[in-house]
Amino acid sequence: MSAKLYKKKEYLLRQFARTNKKNYENYVVTRIFHLINDLEIKFVTQQYFKRDNGKFGMADMYFPQFNLSIEIDESQHDSERHIDQDKIRDRDYVSATGDLFSHPQGWMPKRIRVGGDISLLGIDYEIEQTVNYIKELKKKDAGFIPWNIDNEFSYKGLKIFDVHNQIVFKKIVDAINYFRTEELKYDGYQKAGAMTMDKKKKLWFPKLFKNKDWSNTISSDETFIEEKPVQNSKWFANTNHLEKILKKNDKIRIVFAKVKGNLGFVLYRFKGYFVLNEELSKKKGYCCWQRKTTKVSIPEGNPIY
Amino acid sequence: MSAKLYKKKEYLLRQFARTNKKNYENYVVTRIFHLINDLEIKFVTQQYFKRDNGKFGMADMYFPQFNLSIEIDESQHDSERHIDQDKIRDRDYVSATGDLFSHPQGWMPKRIRVGGDISLLGIDYEIEQTVNYIKELKKKDAGFIPWNIDNEFSYKGLKIFDVHNQIVFKKIVDAINYFRTEELKYDGYQKAGAMTMDKKKKLWFPKLFKNKDWSNTISSDETFIEEKPVQNSKWFANTNHLEKILKKNDKIRIVFAKVKGNLGFVLYRFKGYFVLNEELSKKKGYCCWQRKTTKVSIPEGNPIY
Repeated sequence: MSAKLYKKKEYLLRQFARTNKKNYENYVVTRIFHLINDLEIKFVTQQYFKRDNGKFGMADMYFPQFNLSIEIDESQHDSERHIDQDKIRDRDYVSATGDLFSHPQGWMPKRIRVGGDISLLGIDYEIEQTVNYIKELKKKDAGFIPWNIDNEFSYKGLKIFDVHNQIVFKKIVDAINYFRTEELKYDGYQKAGAMTMDKKKKLWFPKLFKNKDWSNTISSDETFIEEKPVQNSKWFANTNHLEKILKKNDKIRIVFAKVKGNLGFVLYRFKGYFVLNEELSKKKGYCCWQRKTTKVSIPEGNPIY
Repeated sequence: MSAKLYKKKEYLLRQFARTNKKNYENYVVTRIFHLINDLEIKFVTQQYFKRDNGKFGMADMYFPQFNLSIEIDESQHDSERHIDQDKIRDRDYVSATGDLFSHPQGWMPKRIRVGGDISLLGIDYEIEQTVNYIKELKKKDAGFIPWNIDNEFSYKGLKIFDVHNQIVFKKIVDAINYFRTEELKYDGYQKAGAMTMDKKKKLWFPKLFKNKDWSNTISSDETFIEEKPVQNSKWFANTNHLEKILKKNDKIRIVFAKVKGNLGFVLYRFKGYFVLNEELSKKKGYCCWQRKTTKVSIPEGNPIY
C-alpha cells in the first residue's frame, strides 16, 4: 500500500516538474489535480495525441481513464495547436478517436483559456467546471478501474485487445505473455518478436519511424505500415527482406509500436492486426502491411472484426 | 474588481514560478494554495525571516496576515535551516518574533516533511491539517483584513506604526505622508529622508548593509544601527558626518530600511524609533543609533513605549 503511494508521489512530482517552465500550465494543472483530490484518477502532463484527421496535438493534461484531454490556451484565439510529426516521431501518442469532446472539426480537447483578458475568477471557474465534470465521469463510469501504479500496464482478464483501449506495455515479454496460456508463459529476455501459439501470426515490436536500420512509417490514419530497410543497412545489403517474409509465409503481424513514453521510458503501444499486402509489396519491393482490424482475441491473437 | 484579479493572477504565477525548481516545494505550495481556495488570503513564497536568536531562516511559504510560515523539509531530520546573512544582506525579511509557532528554541515555522520515507498520504495529511488551521485562523481573527493587492501597502486608519505589524512601503513618499496632516501632504519625488512635522525627528530610509558609500549594519536583535561611511567615499573624505549630525542636533531617527522585496522590487521596512548614542558615537567616531521603541504615533512620529 505505502510502496504504491511512494511511487505515486514520485510520479506526481515528475509530472508536475514538466509543467514548470510555463506558469499558467503549472497553475491550471496543479489546481485541477489538487481539487479533484483523488489518487484513483491518473493524469499525464503533455500527452501527444493524434486527431481523426491524422494531425498531431498535445494535451497539457490528459486523463487516460476517461480519454479526456485538457489544453491550456494562452492565446486569445480558439485555434488548434498542431504538432509537427517529425518532432515527435519516436514519441508515444494516444488516438483521439472516440473521445468525449467531439467537435465538427474532429476531436477536440477541453480548452481552458488563461490569456491576458481572462481574470483569475474566470480561470478558476473553468477549472471548477472541469473538476466537477471529471468527478462526474468517475461516478458514472461503472467500469472505472482505479489507478494502480504498480499494475498500470496490466490487462488481466481482458479477452480482447482493442487499440481504442490504449493497450501499452513496458516490456516486450509482458505483451508476449498475453498471447500465451499459463504453461507456455515466457520469462526470457526481451526479443524483437515472437509467434503466437498457433505459430501463424507474429507479435511484432517495430519502431514505426526512421531509425538506423529501417525507414518505417505508419500512415496518419494508422491503417498502413511501410517496412523499408534503410539503404546500406545490413537488412538492405545482405538480404532481400521481403523475399524472406514471403518465403517463410510470415504475413500476419500483431503490432506493438516501440515508442518513447511521456516520462522518457520505452513503451510498446498496441496498433492492431496487420496483414501483408502482397501485391503492393512486390510492386514497391518492400513490405507493406495493411491493418485488418483494431481488435484481437486474447490469448489466441485472432482478429475480431 | 477585475483589474485586481488580473493583478492577483500575475502575482500568483510569479510566486509559483519561484517554486518551480524544487518539485516538492511546488507540490506542497500549490496544494496548500488551491485547497485554502481563498483569494482574500495572501501568501509569499521563499520569505526570509529573522528568529528571536538573530539567526536568519527562509519560509517556503509565508502568510503575512497571520505571520505564519511553512517550511518544506526534504531531509529526514528536524534540523533548522540557517541562512547566511551575507547572502541576503540587501533582502527584505520579516521578524519572526511573536509568531504562532513558538518553540523552546525560539520561533519555528510549521514544518511539512516530504522526504523519502514520507508517503503521499502522509504529506497530504499534513497539508490538510495546515489548510484547516489557516482557515480557522481567518475565521477566528475578528480584525482580519482581506488581501487587497491594489492597496497592500496602505495602513489607513492606523494610529500607531509597530515593527511587529510588518509595516512596509514601496515608495519613500508614501511613508513620509503618514507623518503629515492632510494639508502638508507631499507629492514630490522620493528623497532619502524628511523631517517630521515638528522638525525634530528625521524619517530615515537607509540601506542597512554595506554599499558603495556606507558600511552600515543593524544588530541581530535589530536594536542597534552603526552608520559608518566607507573609507574613501565622499562622506568619509569631505566631511565628518558625525560632527554634522551633532551640530544640527539631528539625533532622532524613525527608520525604514531600504531592502529588495520578495519579487525583486525595492521596499522600505519600518524598523522603529532610534536615538543617537552620543557617547558611543564620539568614542567610535561614527553614528551609533539605539532603538528606543518599536512603536511610533501617527502622524506625529512620537515614540510609544
